[in-house]
Amino acid sequence: MIQLPTIDSISDVALAGRLQQRIDRLTKPIGSLGRIEALALQIGLVQRSEHPRLSAPQMLVFAADHGLAAQGVSAYPSDVTWQMVENFLAGGAAISVLAEQHSLALHVVDAGVRHRFEPRPRLIVRKIGDGTADSSLGPAMTDEQCERSIEAGREIVAALPGNVVLLGEMGIGNTSAAALLLARLTGHDIAVCAGRGTGLDDAGLQRKLDVLRRVLARHEAAVGPLAALVAFGGFEIAMMAGAALQAAALRRVIVVDGFISGAAVLVAAALTPAVLGYCVFAHRSNEAGHALLLAHLKAEPLLDLGLRLGEGSGAALAWPLVDSAWRLLDRMASFDSAGVSQRSDG
Amino acid sequence: MIQLPTIDSISDVALAGRLQQRIDRLTKPIGSLGRIEALALQIGLVQRSEHPRLSAPQMLVFAADHGLAAQGVSAYPSDVTWQMVENFLAGGAAISVLAEQHSLALHVVDAGVRHRFEPRPRLIVRKIGDGTADSSLGPAMTDEQCERSIEAGREIVAALPGNVVLLGEMGIGNTSAAALLLARLTGHDIAVCAGRGTGLDDAGLQRKLDVLRRVLARHEAAVGPLAALVAFGGFEIAMMAGAALQAAALRRVIVVDGFISGAAVLVAAALTPAVLGYCVFAHRSNEAGHALLLAHLKAEPLLDLGLRLGEGSGAALAWPLVDSAWRLLDRMASFDSAGVSQRSDG
Repeated sequence: MIQLPTIDSISDVALAGRLQQRIDRLTKPIGSLGRIEALALQIGLVQRSEHPRLSAPQMLVFAADHGLAAQGVSAYPSDVTWQMVENFLAGGAAISVLAEQHSLALHVVDAGVRHRFEPRPRLIVRKIGDGTADSSLGPAMTDEQCERSIEAGREIVAALPGNVVLLGEMGIGNTSAAALLLARLTGHDIAVCAGRGTGLDDAGLQRKLDVLRRVLARHEAAVGPLAALVAFGGFEIAMMAGAALQAAALRRVIVVDGFISGAAVLVAAALTPAVLGYCVFAHRSNEAGHALLLAHLKAEPLLDLGLRLGEGSGAALAWPLVDSAWRLLDRMASFDSAGVSQRSDG
Repeated sequence: MIQLPTIDSISDVALAGRLQQRIDRLTKPIGSLGRIEALALQIGLVQRSEHPRLSAPQMLVFAADHGLAAQGVSAYPSDVTWQMVENFLAGGAAISVLAEQHSLALHVVDAGVRHRFEPRPRLIVRKIGDGTADSSLGPAMTDEQCERSIEAGREIVAALPGNVVLLGEMGIGNTSAAALLLARLTGHDIAVCAGRGTGLDDAGLQRKLDVLRRVLARHEAAVGPLAALVAFGGFEIAMMAGAALQAAALRRVIVVDGFISGAAVLVAAALTPAVLGYCVFAHRSNEAGHALLLAHLKAEPLLDLGLRLGEGSGAALAWPLVDSAWRLLDRMASFDSAGVSQRSDG
């Protein structure tokens, strides 16, 4: 039986009141930093501190292959998964450039890529299998593989320094797995959950939908979050769910990238709803189901820039906003300390 | 007669084609970086280069007082203008914290604050007057003051290094001036142009609208952009308009903060429409007229975070996204160079 960590609710009315008071005394009109103020409050609650401080942010990109890709659900061949992992490690991918820009420690996790990588300093090999099985023919993974994936995600996060984890992923076929999880765990029709992924045309999207309907029908009985993970995959999604649960248990801030990492959080929240208090949703992507997923989680993302790349790129782009939130709380002067007059009507 | 610089259109179909081709060869699905890709293209066109590079970003905060504040159009007393300038320089304001976070060179310009500041390294004194005159009683400034303000903005930018200017401002009463400019230059009713500024309540907003209607009626003949600036002010808005025009003439990227800096760009664009090609609009603020202003300029802002602080804070928060755009174009690998397979359907 899978071991899930204990996650405290971040709710603390007294601390929230003290944090809000600190925010309201900073030299700015009340509420004038909008969402950034709400972020500062959340970070304080996550850290149980009136003086929160984010440090050593860790960008984790979980990569794995999907057996369902054989059914033609992606515009790209499965080889792109391992090729992009090489690109991440060589510094040529979007996430490599963004991680360098923002001094994010980048690790790529081989959660189950159909490829043998040479050992590399930034590569963490926790391969559960050579890609998942084809979920149109049977379960994507075994119960034991699902447990090992979640456990690996937990262990990876537990071994990292810092108090922020940013979640990203790579895996040809994984928008299909995410759409299947969304449809099953929320009850939305698959037609509104699945989109063009990295770039399917109309015919490709229709083919993808036909395949996904068959997969859902085949796994009718897989209704709980773990059963759905086992049925639909993938290894990287299960590992991200474990990573999110562990990060929350350690009271770290979790910056969630896009649709697929969002699906991992959907699973994690179905297991332990308190994980959501630790999550910052980076952006609303162009992928069809993402807005539905965010709405289901009552999540308001920071950015809306038409991104649909994955890799953690949206999380990295949003990171400076999260980083600003605690810095403003930490370093701005108060009206008193700066000798600035208060409102004339207040 | 005022001297305006020559501004080239950034349009260049051939260069745009070559830039788009470079963007499309990077290791990501076509278009998957959304707005960031459009930004990279714009920066390339601004710099007339397939290999654009942003350097030494300059944050300019223009501060001035407004005679109209005497009519009770703001929730804060006019003294807050100089007090906040001191706060900017002492490092305690939001913009101070954000500029430090992102290594933005911060200068505060005294465009006409009713206060004598001690000289300081980051303070540029180009005082046009001790605040504008009360526009409910007469013109906010003279024609000559308007020209000197624009000229000062041009000179300040011309003296700065780097190829990016971020525009911010401080001035109790300046949402009124911005709303008046918006109403006059676009024809929108003042009731949809003016908002709560830094925090008026319902009664305060009603009082502000009554005052602004009187001001508009008094200056019925002030229809052109310069005449409207003379009628409504302020010095900081005129100076930002000059700064934007000069930055565009020097082919620099201009990051525009919120409603008031947006009003300065509205004036600049009415004088020389080509300036808009150089502008990146940082965010859509909560201030009522801002969405109208952006729509009038056909501008799609990067952020929508409920900000309404000014100071250039929104520009500073959006800056990392602008900085990412050229970095991704500059540093990402292409499909060929990284050995990543192309789409299977393409």
